[in-house]
Parts: sequence; C-alpha cells; structure tokens
Amino acid sequence: MENNAMQRLNALIEAKNSRICAGLDPTWEGIPSTVKDSMGRARYRRPKVFAEYCKQYVDTVAEVVPAIKINSAFFEREGYEWLYFDIADYAREKGLFVIGDVKRADIGNTSNAYAEAYLGEYSPFDAITINPYFGSDGIIPFMSLAAKNDKAVFVLVKTSNKSSSEIQDLELADGRKVYECVAEQVRQWAMQVDTKNYNNYPLVGAVVGATYPEQAKALQVILGKTMLLVPGYGAQGATAQDVAVNFDREGLGAIVNSSRGIMQAYKKDCWKDKFTEKEWAEAAKAEAIRATKEINDAINKMWQNDQPC
Amino acid sequence: MENNAMQRLNALIEAKNSRICAGLDPTWEGIPSTVKDSMGRARYRRPKVFAEYCKQYVDTVAEVVPAIKINSAFFEREGYEWLYFDIADYAREKGLFVIGDVKRADIGNTSNAYAEAYLGEYSPFDAITINPYFGSDGIIPFMSLAAKNDKAVFVLVKTSNKSSSEIQDLELADGRKVYECVAEQVRQWAMQVDTKNYNNYPLVGAVVGATYPEQAKALQVILGKTMLLVPGYGAQGATAQDVAVNFDREGLGAIVNSSRGIMQAYKKDCWKDKFTEKEWAEAAKAEAIRATKEINDAINKMWQNDQPC
Repeated sequence: MENNAMQRLNALIEAKNSRICAGLDPTWEGIPSTVKDSMGRARYRRPKVFAEYCKQYVDTVAEVVPAIKINSAFFEREGYEWLYFDIADYAREKGLFVIGDVKRADIGNTSNAYAEAYLGEYSPFDAITINPYFGSDGIIPFMSLAAKNDKAVFVLVKTSNKSSSEIQDLELADGRKVYECVAEQVRQWAMQVDTKNYNNYPLVGAVVGATYPEQAKALQVILGKTMLLVPGYGAQGATAQDVAVNFDREGLGAIVNSSRGIMQAYKKDCWKDKFTEKEWAEAAKAEAIRATKEINDAINKMWQNDQPC
Repeated sequence: MENNAMQRLNALIEAKNSRICAGLDPTWEGIPSTVKDSMGRARYRRPKVFAEYCKQYVDTVAEVVPAIKINSAFFEREGYEWLYFDIADYAREKGLFVIGDVKRADIGNTSNAYAEAYLGEYSPFDAITINPYFGSDGIIPFMSLAAKNDKAVFVLVKTSNKSSSEIQDLELADGRKVYECVAEQVRQWAMQVDTKNYNNYPLVGAVVGATYPEQAKALQVILGKTMLLVPGYGAQGATAQDVAVNFDREGLGAIVNSSRGIMQAYKKDCWKDKFTEKEWAEAAKAEAIRATKEINDAINKMWQNDQPC
C-alpha cells in the first residue's frame, strides 16, 4: 500500500522539496550543437546523439526534480520508439517518477493493448496520460492494469492549449461545462477501480492546464484530492501564481510540468548571459531549481494570505 | 487535384465495388497456428511470425477491398512500431488505401510532431485517425500536413463503443449534443485548411460508429459530404442496414471497417464448417466478399425504398 504510484510521487516531491516535473520533448533542432559535436556529426550518428541528449537531460533533472514527463510524439517523429522506452528505463533507474505522455485512448480492446504496452508489469513508466473522449470502456482497461501493476493514469480534463475551450468548455444543459463533467467521471472511474481500498484514488490523476487558474479552482471542488498533472507553466504562459491554486496546505496534490522552459533554459532572457549553449545542462538545472523555488514560494504565499480569521 | 486522398479512396471503392475497410488488429493469440508453424516456433521468430501474418492478411484483403485500417496499439503492445510502418508500406504497395488508426492528438507543437510521424512526405499512410478533445490547435497541424502531402485525417466524432455516450452524448445548453458540436467543428476545420479549393473538404473525414445509426443520420445533416470512416460493423454488433445510412445515392461517402470479423472469419458460425484454421486467409477473403455484398445490397435496398413519389 505504501508503494502505490501517487504515494511514490508524493514521497519524491517531499524528499526533493520540488513540485516540478521536467518535460522531455526532444527535437533534432533543439539539441545543443555541443552534444551533436561530441557524438560525431555523421548522419548515422543521429540516433546516438538523440539518445545521448536525452540521457544528459535525465541526469541533469534527476538531481533536482522528482518527476519527468516524456512525450512520445517526439520519439515517434524520428522513428525512435525503442529509445522512448530506453530513456524511460534510464529515468527510472535515476530515481525519477516517469510519466509517459502518450495521450492514448480507443475502444476497450484497443485501450487494453495500449495499456499493456505502457502499463504492463515490466513497463518503465509509473504513469501515463490518457484521453477521455471514448468514455469508460476506453478508460477502464488503463485503470485496471495500473491497479494491478501499481502504476497510475492522468486523464485529460482541461488542457493547457488556447483552443481547449472549443470542446472542453461547451456549456451543458445542466449548467456544467464539458470539462467539469469529465472531472466528475474521472472521480467515478477512480472509485470503480479502487480495488485496493486506497484513499483518495491514487491510481487516477487529472491533467488540468495551468493556463486556466479559474477553472482549476472550480475543478478542485469536483476532483477533491485527485492528483493533478499541471502543464502550461513557463513556455505556455502560466505564472507560478497560476499554478499555486492546484496545491493544498501541505503543498501537495499536484505536479507542475515545464518542458521547453527547462530544456531550452540557456536561451531564456534570465539565463542567456550566464550560460552558453555548451552549458545547456547547467542552465536546465538552474532553471529547474529556480522554477522549484518560485512555485514553492507562490504556494507558501497563497496559503499565508489565506489564514483563517 | 485528382490525386487528393479522399478522391483516391473513392476511386478505389468504385474500382473494387467494395465499401469495406479491412481492419488489422494483430494479436499473438489471434495468429493462426499454421502461420506460427510455418515460420518456426522458436521465441526469436516471434517478430517474423507477426510480420508474416500481417503480410498474408494484406495480400488477402488487397484482392477484394479498397482500404486497410492498421491499429497502432497492437504493434505498440509488442514493441513492433518498426513493423507498423513496414506493414503500412507493404499495404500501400499492394494498392490499398492505408489508414493509420493512431487516434493521436495533443497541444499544437506535439500534434505537429505526431503529424510529421504519420503524415510526412514519405509516410506510407494515406490517412490517420485523430482525437478532437484539444480543439483546433491540436487538429490544425494534422490537417495542414495532410493538405501539403495529399493525405487525409478522420476526426473522431461519435465512436462505436457502448460508453461513447458518456461524454459524446452530453446535452449542451443550446440543445445540441457534444458529438454534434464536434461534427460542426470538423466541418469548420475542414474549411480552414481547404487551401486547394477542393470541394467537399476531402482532407477531412469523420469517424461515426455504425452502432449508432440514428445519430449517424443526424450527423449527415451537419457533416454534409464529409467522408465517413464507420467502425462497429460485425464483431461490435452493427448490421449492414445500420451502416447503409451513411452512404449517398451513388453508394459513396463512407467506408465501413471490419477488423475481427475478417481476421477471425474462420471461427465464425457461417464459415467454420467451410474453412479450417489453416484456411484462415481464404475465410477472411470470403468474409470480405460477403460483407462487401451485404453492404452493397443494403445500400441499394435503402435507396430503392426511398424513391421520390
């Protein structure tokens, strides 16, 4: 029971005192030339360069943050699905909580096949992201296998992108929004597979974009103590204050993703005078530490301002 | 202009006089023992057996149907993503319209990476399936690349599974259902990327489950001449009559998927006395021909019954 996925995540958050999940969205263009040069520029070296960059990124962030979110799209683009699993393995060995950002879902028997791919017994992933559009029978197979193998899922509820409103914010006949209804279903799905009598449904988390802090507040009432994966901080525009609303008084209940903000920290205004491209990893680490502190401070400040009278 | 994806599909439908898309959802358990025996039963032969089965399936269905839908989940489960593309290539060489059933979608930059993986210039896929939950900026990157490379997308509108009602059928404040609103957006998205002035938005199709024929009729009003990919026929329970409603007077406008029904035809009541497991391919072909005829007949009958007075 101590070993369930969300408890492992919370323990890591407390141990490292960081609520940052470092996102890994590798692109060939985004790999610093210093990594490319070190591995040789010949065309056949490309997979090795890609792998080396991912490993160096894992090494860097593992020192300071509790979790990594690895985006399958950027491995599929290159045809490096094998590397996707290798890097997840490597991140797990380095002690990170590993989120497979795959956003999968389909009808039941197909969801079951995806679940076996990413949440199977020997899978390196602690959790994956999934899409709710199919309803229960596209979701339950993931939850069942997560329950069996002490893994977790994060269901998309309100995504961080601008046009998430087009479908997710549609107003329902009963006054709710689509994303609120999805949130309620997430809570119900979580209860359905709560076979181990966990409190607070640790098998099932929700993706709630930091770019919509007002909606996030409303969702807390519905989602209760459901663990949140919060994208949108940094490159996508959400501030530390925007993300703070997702945390409870103990500073738990959520993990905040930053991908481009950490990966390309050496290009940012606040770091570009301190770090060269060659020092991209040092810049990434500095940015992860800075973001960790900024978010911790914002959470502390929010709860200080919210003292009982 | 003659070469756009949906026109290629319609030309194949007319040439083969078949509206069946043969689905390929390969599982180890589902591969007939005759294929396993022919390739050798040693553990290291497993990928070769899997590949051989897929190729024999492609050879079989290519003779009688215009299209194949290859489900990524069943390749990812085995770790055979490389084979996913190989089989798509093979199907394309055999003259099939190749649908990559990947159900991908994410925020813009990630959708762009997925689009480059599956709809890039040299991709073997003619079309892929995508999920609408993120709204426009998760969809447009797929459509843009489809437009550039004469490929297409099928956006999930109303899926064939039982619990699709949970989110897709939610009633909106304005009286519509969520899936109707998604259908309207599909039409709008199609118009947005209609850069080549195609008629009827051939870049963008919709997935409309055959298991909901009443909803399918309502959707036709919204979707107009949008090409439909219709799952749910056969193993999932929809009849030929259920799927016929998706076709126009010319017998065009849709393609009906059958996966398990064709793959495992030799186990079906109507074929098991005629074919042994060894003759699984002959049974698959017979079933594809039978389904083709059944659906053609149902469409003819529907329009005959619907003569103008």
